[in-house]
Amino acid sequence: MVVNLTSEEAVRERLLREALILFNTKGYAATSVREIVAAAGVSKPTLYYYFASKEGIYLELMAATMATFQAEVGQLIVPQGTASQQLRRFATGVFDIFTTHLEVVRLIYAIFFGPPQGAPYFRHEEFFDLMVQAVGEMVQDGISSGEFRPVAAADLTWAVISCMNTVMEEQLCNQVPRMDRAGLERMLTLILEGIRQTEG
Amino acid sequence: MVVNLTSEEAVRERLLREALILFNTKGYAATSVREIVAAAGVSKPTLYYYFASKEGIYLELMAATMATFQAEVGQLIVPQGTASQQLRRFATGVFDIFTTHLEVVRLIYAIFFGPPQGAPYFRHEEFFDLMVQAVGEMVQDGISSGEFRPVAAADLTWAVISCMNTVMEEQLCNQVPRMDRAGLERMLTLILEGIRQTEG
Repeated sequence: MVVNLTSEEAVRERLLREALILFNTKGYAATSVREIVAAAGVSKPTLYYYFASKEGIYLELMAATMATFQAEVGQLIVPQGTASQQLRRFATGVFDIFTTHLEVVRLIYAIFFGPPQGAPYFRHEEFFDLMVQAVGEMVQDGISSGEFRPVAAADLTWAVISCMNTVMEEQLCNQVPRMDRAGLERMLTLILEGIRQTEG
Repeated sequence: MVVNLTSEEAVRERLLREALILFNTKGYAATSVREIVAAAGVSKPTLYYYFASKEGIYLELMAATMATFQAEVGQLIVPQGTASQQLRRFATGVFDIFTTHLEVVRLIYAIFFGPPQGAPYFRHEEFFDLMVQAVGEMVQDGISSGEFRPVAAADLTWAVISCMNTVMEEQLCNQVPRMDRAGLERMLTLILEGIRQTEG
């Protein structure tokens, strides 16, 4: 898709993109406003105009990612097909979102698990909470409809979330991922087939 | 257990402990040798004598943790009971090791997922590899013996590992963990009961 960015949008996007690259390669704490504007080919006042500060550019990266994630995850919640099908569609869809935005995910992990870097507070848990809630509802539907045996909804929810979380995390590792999108789908099939309500 | 440390051992252990606390609270990069020796109440030459450098103290922390982990994980591999029982015993045992050593685990996550901090290379993946291998063998045994249906061993292995990984990671989060040791055991029971070979 070709987007016609106005010059304003182009500068803003360029600043965000270069800041993300620098935060990931040097770390948030070690990145200066000077380096960000140099990489984006703009002046310091330009950065201050759009984002006020390094903290501002970081918070905008987080807020924009959260908005994108919420919108894209929302589109994956389609009450069509069985609960198993919905769960697999949701999990692989979230996997696709994750890999599409891998660089900002890398930054989120670095801030969340990394050493204190002086980044302003952002509630990163919300990404995870959104997934837990959506999966929880699909699981509950599957149990209520009798598609699944009456297992504990929280345990099944966390088993599904665990597979999603671990396979996605594997894509962030410094080696060739040992588990992929297709593997995630197979793992879920294995778990969900096991709790399927059988006739009789 | 009361351990009678010689004075040499006590100094060495104190340096390791204070370095770990500083690495976690300030970050590895931001911690200086001066701060470590001040916290441990010893002189710089004492640190240089035992560990040569900040890099040396970090690598010793990693090597000692790996040795402990290998020894403790090894004790969890007991060919007693069903494959399901072995897997549950292994997973909860690893969970206990993880929570016992939570502070060094925190450092490993910070270095692994965090920004570049100039820490010397250590193959952190080995912790994960050890778990994948042990779980893989138990899963294979369960399939071979007919206890489990003939599912794909790799998928079942990763489903078990995923639950372990996610529940352990949850203990590192900045909030009250939403899933615990008992929950991990229930999740595994849910998955393993689902693939149990049924008579007839």
